Amino acid sequence: MNLNFNTPRTDLALEAREMLTKRVNQTIPGVLMETAEDEEVIITRVNITTPKAQEMMGKMQGKYVTIEAQGLRYKNTPLQEKVMNHLAHELAAMVNLPKSATVLVIGLGNWNVTPDALGPRAVDKIVVTRHLQEMLSPELQGGVRSICAIAPGVLGITGMETAEIVAGIVSKIKPNLVIAIDALAAASSHRVITTVQIANTGIHPGSGVGNKRFGITQETLGVPVVAIGVPTVVHASTIAMDTINTLQEHASFARYFKSMENLSDSDRQVIVRQVLPEALGDLMVTPKEVDRLIADVADVVAGGINQAMHPTIDYKNIHMYLH
Amino acid sequence: MNLNFNTPRTDLALEAREMLTKRVNQTIPGVLMETAEDEEVIITRVNITTPKAQEMMGKMQGKYVTIEAQGLRYKNTPLQEKVMNHLAHELAAMVNLPKSATVLVIGLGNWNVTPDALGPRAVDKIVVTRHLQEMLSPELQGGVRSICAIAPGVLGITGMETAEIVAGIVSKIKPNLVIAIDALAAASSHRVITTVQIANTGIHPGSGVGNKRFGITQETLGVPVVAIGVPTVVHASTIAMDTINTLQEHASFARYFKSMENLSDSDRQVIVRQVLPEALGDLMVTPKEVDRLIADVADVVAGGINQAMHPTIDYKNIHMYLH
Amino acid sequence: MNLNFNTPRTDLALEAREMLTKRVNQTIPGVLMETAEDEEVIITRVNITTPKAQEMMGKMQGKYVTIEAQGLRYKNTPLQEKVMNHLAHELAAMVNLPKSATVLVIGLGNWNVTPDALGPRAVDKIVVTRHLQEMLSPELQGGVRSICAIAPGVLGITGMETAEIVAGIVSKIKPNLVIAIDALAAASSHRVITTVQIANTGIHPGSGVGNKRFGITQETLGVPVVAIGVPTVVHASTIAMDTINTLQEHASFARYFKSMENLSDSDRQVIVRQVLPEALGDLMVTPKEVDRLIADVADVVAGGINQAMHPTIDYKNIHMYLH
Amino acid sequence: MNLNFNTPRTDLALEAREMLTKRVNQTIPGVLMETAEDEEVIITRVNITTPKAQEMMGKMQGKYVTIEAQGLRYKNTPLQEKVMNHLAHELAAMVNLPKSATVLVIGLGNWNVTPDALGPRAVDKIVVTRHLQEMLSPELQGGVRSICAIAPGVLGITGMETAEIVAGIVSKIKPNLVIAIDALAAASSHRVITTVQIANTGIHPGSGVGNKRFGITQETLGVPVVAIGVPTVVHASTIAMDTINTLQEHASFARYFKSMENLSDSDRQVIVRQVLPEALGDLMVTPKEVDRLIADVADVVAGGINQAMHPTIDYKNIHMYLH
Repeated sequence: MNLNFNTPRTDLALEAREMLTKRVNQTIPGVLMETAEDEEVIITRVNITTPKAQEMMGKMQGKYVTIEAQGLRYKNTPLQEKVMNHLAHELAAMVNLPKSATVLVIGLGNWNVTPDALGPRAVDKIVVTRHLQEMLSPELQGGVRSICAIAPGVLGITGMETAEIVAGIVSKIKPNLVIAIDALAAASSHRVITTVQIANTGIHPGSGVGNKRFGITQETLGVPVVAIGVPTVVHASTIAMDTINTLQEHASFARYFKSMENLSDSDRQVIVRQVLPEALGDLMVTPKEVDRLIADVADVVAGGINQAMHPTIDYKNIHMYLH
Repeated sequence: MNLNFNTPRTDLALEAREMLTKRVNQTIPGVLMETAEDEEVIITRVNITTPKAQEMMGKMQGKYVTIEAQGLRYKNTPLQEKVMNHLAHELAAMVNLPKSATVLVIGLGNWNVTPDALGPRAVDKIVVTRHLQEMLSPELQGGVRSICAIAPGVLGITGMETAEIVAGIVSKIKPNLVIAIDALAAASSHRVITTVQIANTGIHPGSGVGNKRFGITQETLGVPVVAIGVPTVVHASTIAMDTINTLQEHASFARYFKSMENLSDSDRQVIVRQVLPEALGDLMVTPKEVDRLIADVADVVAGGINQAMHPTIDYKNIHMYLH
Repeated sequence: MNLNFNTPRTDLALEAREMLTKRVNQTIPGVLMETAEDEEVIITRVNITTPKAQEMMGKMQGKYVTIEAQGLRYKNTPLQEKVMNHLAHELAAMVNLPKSATVLVIGLGNWNVTPDALGPRAVDKIVVTRHLQEMLSPELQGGVRSICAIAPGVLGITGMETAEIVAGIVSKIKPNLVIAIDALAAASSHRVITTVQIANTGIHPGSGVGNKRFGITQETLGVPVVAIGVPTVVHASTIAMDTINTLQEHASFARYFKSMENLSDSDRQVIVRQVLPEALGDLMVTPKEVDRLIADVADVVAGGINQAMHPTIDYKNIHMYLH
Repeated sequence: MNLNFNTPRTDLALEAREMLTKRVNQTIPGVLMETAEDEEVIITRVNITTPKAQEMMGKMQGKYVTIEAQGLRYKNTPLQEKVMNHLAHELAAMVNLPKSATVLVIGLGNWNVTPDALGPRAVDKIVVTRHLQEMLSPELQGGVRSICAIAPGVLGITGMETAEIVAGIVSKIKPNLVIAIDALAAASSHRVITTVQIANTGIHPGSGVGNKRFGITQETLGVPVVAIGVPTVVHASTIAMDTINTLQEHASFARYFKSMENLSDSDRQVIVRQVLPEALGDLMVTPKEVDRLIADVADVVAGGINQAMHPTIDYKNIHMYLH
């Protein structure tokens, strides 16, 4: 991966825009943004509308909605339900599916690597119904869409590109929509586990905690792909870079420096490589309790998808639908 | 499932032949059998050669090799290695693959249901190499075939027939051979975990611990399919039927009966349904320690496949191949 | 274990009474019983009041309350909550604890053996609070008792008797009550996963799915011990015996027999041993989906205990208590 | 925790000595050190011999042996066996146990938090024998010591201090030695998963990945305690501090600074808190694949203990000892 040491790696369009705005010190043409708040929850919609904006942002043209709530780190059931409701609402607004549509949910990532396991764990909680369609009573037909779901594993586990497996399944099942769930990297540690991003752009090579080599997009599959992601890590190199930047930016430290403005990119790289030798492989910064946090946020993501897909299901009585 | 209460359900050709021979009281035309022994290990080859024999046996025409060792229930490393070697040998003899072949290994069954989890657990231990082919040094080309592997889950988990998923993947990956690993039901409790069956017939509807509705065969996929299975359960109804049969067969109990010969099939069914009400769903008889036993036998199955596929790999130094 | 082949093994006082009543064909002196119903839920209270009754029943003198609901096998949230409420109520009635009491919850059984894992899985869901007592605000003092919990493992895992470990911990922690959760064996397959038993007698040697060699009782620990159990298995030998008994009892089969009344115990044993050779170890009959069923019923058991211990906690807002 | 921002947190005596030596720029009186090499393996023995040295080092007086091998990060079976042999040898040398001794192995840490799960996972692989002593044949008595083992969980899971639970068990079992296995924090990312430390000092409050509040030592238990640990994380704040230090130390960056020598401790703290807000809780730097790495190194630790305790066992034929 060709790390650019001035722009720490992020999979969030929100952060990409923040960093870019700070660097160029003006709004970016072709990038629209709007924000809404609901008590502790902040919803941000970033719309990248031109190829030029796509290039500047380093993110594909399309719509990105971010739902943030710092309280997601704590076992706060009412807040989790509120974020779940917003996710369901934003997802439904983004895809506009007919009732008779079939949806394939894909859980990307490696279930053996906790911070990469969001996708597989969320898929475990998706209410799949495609195999039950014929058994549903007429009055349920309105509320229960045809959903199927799989966590296909990663290249190192299967020997197959995830994109190959998904393309094969799509060619047989012929869904109207693919929803791909993935663990992301953030630039800022306070976004880890507290932010859900929904994008109508699909999944692109190099994104996520695992390193994808092929995209999962409308172009490659022939059906629309919505990506839902949650940051679970910050790259350790981001912490090192942030430290340098903080040192440089704080006016109060000016007395130490002759001039930091010209601290060159290659010098920064030397420092980071000294602190984090490349030989050690990817080092990730995660909360110590990432296992529990991922279990909780997987519930939120799956719950939001279930609600968007099956709006009239009464989950308390779900046994009545399943037996 | 249309249970026949005189022939307890078994997925082993060996047992099907035993039961049939006993009933018809003669050898069955079109069914060839040969046996070999290696200390505690017994190898049996059953060959069903005619459509008539297929019908009588209730098993597809083709070759079935069974490797049995009672000691597999105990943590006996040398015996496990011996069975692994026999499995590798029998598998290699059955498929006769060119060195350049690509093989897709499928782990059938539900990882959340311990006695059905053999396939997924064995797939975890398969050495996948398809993604490494370009990185291998020339001297390794002879010993490392192109292997990929996946555990696709079951209908209730994915909403998709396993056969659909596999067909989709096969259409993209185009392997030369599919190996499908599955947990089986035996008629006799002493075959549980102690027997490995290899068959060149693929996987047929209704077989295995889970109930398949579609086959995974050369007919459906367009490539040869070898099935490898290990019995992990006996159906509870088999225990009940065995009890009736034992009562009837033991000459020493003759004094109790007027005549048991004419205990009708429907009477037998009444008794079994009394003991095991249908409403309770599938009741399985398994060893209490099935979790550990399945972990052990999954190692044996995966080890046998790895050895057959990559005959010259030195597993002690496998890190040298993988980095 | 000295199997008595006329009285199939059960850990439920309810079943022991049923079998005994049937054999002696009259009510048993010293055994009191009362029954209540709440829609699909049946509550039975068996009270063994004399040493003679204890001997006849093969169950310790004391109180046994059974809560049965066939629907517990299905993902029926409202029914699970109803059983949970009954369990909380019966448990609170049985122990009558002061608010300031400390309670130690013990999850018995082997987490690696699914049908024996009820105790460890329920303990995972217990809300432990002993370490938080000093941090609680005054208004919570009334609703949050001091609870601690551990799953100590089994002899084969630790090399220590569970009773030794528990006695050591009790000697340091000095709780006012021990609650021991355990997986049980039933005589009848329809009680598997559908019944919760609460007993004020503690845990006795030989009970449960695992074979205990030492008791966990008020006598051995010096504090009261309440046992909460759910049957997760039927012994395979019980199925075989039931088959013989059914054959014998059904008048409609009388025409086959000269006389079954005198089918001797040793003859029965010969038949069962023929069907289930002792060498195979303990064979258990369980629902195929025991993994999911145990997860669900562990929620019910833990939920009932939590509610009985912390009656005024608002679980929706539990994060407010924990942070 | 009172973080000292000039001395990053480490649980390794080796690193504490390195950092101290660098700061004071001379050898430390009362701290003896010797080093040995065996190809890729480096063994270092640090002996803290005086109370003064204990205070300077921030580590208890006693012996610390460190076995380092960078290759432990890769699936290198021969290297793992070599480290295992060194661990067995160093452990045996440190404790000098009679053949008839009973040893209690404690796996510290939280099994739900991957980087803290080393102890519980290693305990899973310990060959426990205490319950088998009477069943062993006379010729095995020399090779099989009486071992028992438990992973008691952490305060947040049990509501009890680990030290309380261990003290309770020790009071009943009366072992001759306690071995406590724990996951550690290192100051340098290249020591993560590549280093095993053995110390005769026991476990002290505040050490390890989890935050202990009470020690597990000869003083508190009345029997000798050997601690075996492997670093699995670096605190994120260490990465930030290392970045500042690297910037300051590299002569090549001197041109940027007026003077970094007087960058005050409180300024450093301001920078680190800016990059890593305290509110986020403990952020850990771990290799992305920490799940697999911990499984591998738990095998090494358990294997070393097993070999030191049962020197003459033939592990290939371990089933012969266990049945």
